[in-house]
Amino acid sequence: MTALHEAIAELAQFNDDPAAGGITREVYTPTYASALEWVAERMRAAGLQTRLDAVGNLFGRWEGADPDAPTVLTGSHVDTTLNAGRYDGVLGVLGAIEAVRALRAAGARPRRSIELVAWAGEEPRFVTGCVGSRAAAGELQRADLDRLRDREGTSMADALRGAGFDPDRLGDARIDPATVHALVELHIEQGIVLETHGEQVGVVTAIAAPHDFRLTFRGAATHAGATPMGLRRDALAGAAEAMVALERAARASVSGTTVGTVGVLRARPGAINVVPGEVELDVDVRDSDLAAREQVVDAIVAAAREIAGRRDLEVEVTPIVQDVPVACDPTVVAAAEAACRELGLSYRPMTSGAYHDAMIMGRRVPVGMVFVPSAGGVSHHPDEYTAPADLDRGVQVLAGTLARLAG
Amino acid sequence: MTALHEAIAELAQFNDDPAAGGITREVYTPTYASALEWVAERMRAAGLQTRLDAVGNLFGRWEGADPDAPTVLTGSHVDTTLNAGRYDGVLGVLGAIEAVRALRAAGARPRRSIELVAWAGEEPRFVTGCVGSRAAAGELQRADLDRLRDREGTSMADALRGAGFDPDRLGDARIDPATVHALVELHIEQGIVLETHGEQVGVVTAIAAPHDFRLTFRGAATHAGATPMGLRRDALAGAAEAMVALERAARASVSGTTVGTVGVLRARPGAINVVPGEVELDVDVRDSDLAAREQVVDAIVAAAREIAGRRDLEVEVTPIVQDVPVACDPTVVAAAEAACRELGLSYRPMTSGAYHDAMIMGRRVPVGMVFVPSAGGVSHHPDEYTAPADLDRGVQVLAGTLARLAG
Repeated sequence: MTALHEAIAELAQFNDDPAAGGITREVYTPTYASALEWVAERMRAAGLQTRLDAVGNLFGRWEGADPDAPTVLTGSHVDTTLNAGRYDGVLGVLGAIEAVRALRAAGARPRRSIELVAWAGEEPRFVTGCVGSRAAAGELQRADLDRLRDREGTSMADALRGAGFDPDRLGDARIDPATVHALVELHIEQGIVLETHGEQVGVVTAIAAPHDFRLTFRGAATHAGATPMGLRRDALAGAAEAMVALERAARASVSGTTVGTVGVLRARPGAINVVPGEVELDVDVRDSDLAAREQVVDAIVAAAREIAGRRDLEVEVTPIVQDVPVACDPTVVAAAEAACRELGLSYRPMTSGAYHDAMIMGRRVPVGMVFVPSAGGVSHHPDEYTAPADLDRGVQVLAGTLARLAG
Repeated sequence: MTALHEAIAELAQFNDDPAAGGITREVYTPTYASALEWVAERMRAAGLQTRLDAVGNLFGRWEGADPDAPTVLTGSHVDTTLNAGRYDGVLGVLGAIEAVRALRAAGARPRRSIELVAWAGEEPRFVTGCVGSRAAAGELQRADLDRLRDREGTSMADALRGAGFDPDRLGDARIDPATVHALVELHIEQGIVLETHGEQVGVVTAIAAPHDFRLTFRGAATHAGATPMGLRRDALAGAAEAMVALERAARASVSGTTVGTVGVLRARPGAINVVPGEVELDVDVRDSDLAAREQVVDAIVAAAREIAGRRDLEVEVTPIVQDVPVACDPTVVAAAEAACRELGLSYRPMTSGAYHDAMIMGRRVPVGMVFVPSAGGVSHHPDEYTAPADLDRGVQVLAGTLARLAG
């Protein structure tokens, strides 16, 4: 699958920060728009009819023998986090184009239409991720577009306008679940489970979901030299203690699979000679076991309140996103497993620790996912890597799965 | 001292970020240059001869009866940290102008010349503070001007050029210690010692000095969902543990007066769904007891290395600044105490927890400081406040001290 490997390298050229070493291509930027147009052109070259919906989700349709039958959707996303890798999301879009090419080359004519999709904004530019698939699932309200803001304070509504979309047409992006037979997403694992077990393909049976929230600690921004230790209200010292408690709570989870992370920390005012008066922690807790996840969240919030009380700090808890884990559809899982068996590949039924657009759509329509190994589990980083042979196998499994689902 | 209170309010108008609520006036910016020119004009209106030296220190001279006698220096700074208060530094410059006015109005004609000074860059725009007084003390080398950089990466040399100075003339800013009889600096306390004890004036007997350094933790920036807790190399989780250890080490100091602070924390890449792969902590440890301070620094570095080793992280220690505490000169202390007694004010001999330009010059010439209370000990913050009556008393004590030192 040299074509796929080359296409991934070509798409990686659409990059707002090449000097950093990785890929920066956030949704609704001019660079993203150029990248999406490049993908659309590649879809058309593969014989697909393309269209953009009201929030910038890109579709490429291969009309089936029965155009009115519910369709089979497949795809992922081509936006990235900051200084990210080149495979996350991209594989599921460019790989789907290769899968369609392979099916057409083999003379297939499926009964159901197959629709490829590049969802807009899977990565959390607006703190909440999966904004494109959320719009398609009918889970975004018009007011959310004004509320969701990126780190520069730009609202999603303004970003949409800047990219040529009309936020008031949000409702047009909704997909009627009755029109979708199934959705399958090909993705890199972003972990080391397959690598550790020496397996070639992961067939996802459940997708863990995040509960994200912000903890804001407020104390007193006083002079670092002139404020004795006993008279401080140091918001960062309190936040540090809370981070230690967070890690302990995640490790102690009853499910054994909960993960807890502080990915973003802002300490203000941010001068070496001033005790931080305000600290924000953006917290991410995930599990495929909803009850275990919520127990960990409760333990973290309780610890934060206890620490704040003891240190004479205020603490505020601001919700960011709270998603429900999704079980994959047995029919989609069976189709992917059958494809693996036919190809003679070793595969592993597994949980997805990362969330995906498939999780959002999985609340409305039957979904499944196919994973290929990530070298060292590295993702959201310039060193993210999946070997060409693994990419190739992922496309073959996706093609076999689509063929089975489309009939 | 209504004039002083009004002058402080007027100088506060020179502000690069009024929307934030406080004062932002960093050295070598156009706003700082305008503020300094306003101060120079005020010095000239008080009968002083003004000049700028090679690094932008502003002097205002009141020629004494014996112009060749070593001079009495007094002053502070008018640059600020980000979103700071209006009194820190400013009081020592504008208050000195009022002290000279009061002495002249009373018909004084001192034997020694009195030189007022507004030192450039006391606040750490270039991470290292007191760059103006360091230049005057001969403690900056030409190479330092290229090495010292602000948060945008601008070197001090480039900032000097941008403000119209020639970094190659750094040596011209050096003050021959033999030409200085004594230096006294009036300042707000920036702590709550005077307020707690209900005393009107602080006479400083020693100035604590900082040992500042950066701890950089490096782990692996992996996916927050797909990386199980047991397989993480989370740089922020390690940094959190190190911050807890830092606070414990400062509290356990044998002197009982050491303070330890992390004022700046940078977590990269800084996305909610990515485990931080690199975290920088800018650490400040201070004491007037040098040995006790160094014990605390050693304990912090040892804890950081132990934590990093246990968590499979790398840790790097980068020096920032390491100053030596200064004991104030008995003659200057005695002059300030005599001034307090003459005025019938309650005063407290005390240590300065904050460092000041007087600490830098104190390695070369006899120095002393006079403190007035800070409401709530708040400093480097928009809420920084000293009551007009306290400002007034500070100016009276300074005038009395200068009169005694200048003869």
